[in-house]
Amino acid sequence: MMFEFLEQVAATAAEATLPHFRSRLAIDNKEAQGFDPVTEADRAAERQIRALIAQRFPEDGIHGEEYGLERPDAPRRWVIDPVDGTRAFITGLPVWGTLVGLTENGRAVAGLMAQPFTGEAFIADGTKAMRLWRGAAEPLGVSGCRDLTDARLFTTSPHLFQGALRQRYDALERDVKLFRYGTDCYAFAMLAAGFADLVIDPGLQAYDIVALIALIEQAGGIVTTLDGGRAENGGDIIAAATPELHASALAVMRG
Amino acid sequence: MMFEFLEQVAATAAEATLPHFRSRLAIDNKEAQGFDPVTEADRAAERQIRALIAQRFPEDGIHGEEYGLERPDAPRRWVIDPVDGTRAFITGLPVWGTLVGLTENGRAVAGLMAQPFTGEAFIADGTKAMRLWRGAAEPLGVSGCRDLTDARLFTTSPHLFQGALRQRYDALERDVKLFRYGTDCYAFAMLAAGFADLVIDPGLQAYDIVALIALIEQAGGIVTTLDGGRAENGGDIIAAATPELHASALAVMRG
Repeated sequence: MMFEFLEQVAATAAEATLPHFRSRLAIDNKEAQGFDPVTEADRAAERQIRALIAQRFPEDGIHGEEYGLERPDAPRRWVIDPVDGTRAFITGLPVWGTLVGLTENGRAVAGLMAQPFTGEAFIADGTKAMRLWRGAAEPLGVSGCRDLTDARLFTTSPHLFQGALRQRYDALERDVKLFRYGTDCYAFAMLAAGFADLVIDPGLQAYDIVALIALIEQAGGIVTTLDGGRAENGGDIIAAATPELHASALAVMRG
Repeated sequence: MMFEFLEQVAATAAEATLPHFRSRLAIDNKEAQGFDPVTEADRAAERQIRALIAQRFPEDGIHGEEYGLERPDAPRRWVIDPVDGTRAFITGLPVWGTLVGLTENGRAVAGLMAQPFTGEAFIADGTKAMRLWRGAAEPLGVSGCRDLTDARLFTTSPHLFQGALRQRYDALERDVKLFRYGTDCYAFAMLAAGFADLVIDPGLQAYDIVALIALIEQAGGIVTTLDGGRAENGGDIIAAATPELHASALAVMRG
């Protein structure tokens, strides 16, 4: 039931975002400082996903990047980032995604990462993590990577690490087999699918990570803050294929 | 005629590469130093593309990453990188591509960048640059971006710049509106499509760039080495949407 609902959400997200992807759309600037584009796709997708949730689960809370928090006291809360990876979106790269997660009493229990251009939907329905593509569903599972020297590390940009954290991140890069930049939420989906072993992204919001926590955990992986705590509230996030790899990377990142 | 031939090459490349993409394939190490994976996809695609060319254009030379140079004295030469962006390939990211370019007397005249997972083919047939996707062809054209402060800059990784070149690259990053890493050949395709304005990648081989030269030039853009010369032999490459932007970026990169 949850699986089919998230599949429906993915289809809705695709309808709302794809017409705007690679159009020469006007970019709004949400923040005068820095660069934080918001597109029509963002707003349209969040409105439509909120409507779907409100219709199906009217008692649940909803927290979205664009339109804020409704029913803050509800034990179940949907957390929405309609377009995660807005820079990828505006530069035409198919590594952005629509993130929709569900928490129960603050803990991630289900989640969706949809990439409408490739036509993929990565879904965790409470018990299992699956990828839908071209009408077929296949189970997701993390790699068995335990050692940093074998690990494929993803991060969105090394520039996001500041001060001592940057030095530790640079040290981690030197320890791993391969590192990649510029991957946004797609990196976490690839971790769940077994093609990356380690993802570190600092400064995430709750709506950037809740859906991905469910996906990674239900694919057999582990995701925490750099303090080692639960990641549902966002922060500096580390996700790994195995507890051993997670512990080794955390040791480097803590210095 | 050239357009249809390159469309056929794209289909052949997809058949050869896609079954291996996201399989848990064994990775060979071509070089003991560093990390340069070669996959079955690489070899199968190059063999099949070579066979297509040999059948259709038996007098042309062929230079491929995996199987070397045939008929070096032929005035026309096909230049093949069966999987450009092997790191993206092995980590599941849809930003690698199959590159097939054609030179006449050393000058790029036609080219293909195919991304089989998204189903895209970017084709320059000698007079025009087009993107094929889901059965539809649309013309490619670069943006009109003239100023660094408006430019979207792509590079594969800042680590590829050494010494003084790295310092100049870092300076360029500070001048532009937005920069992205981790894009390989997809960056050049997005430049041709108008979603990036500037791409810089050092240390490219001829087979990394010939197809993309045709694509960018026939989409209205400009591509040279950092010395300002023709890029057909590879080297440190800079591509830009407009001559003005190219000149400004080159000035920064030359220090």
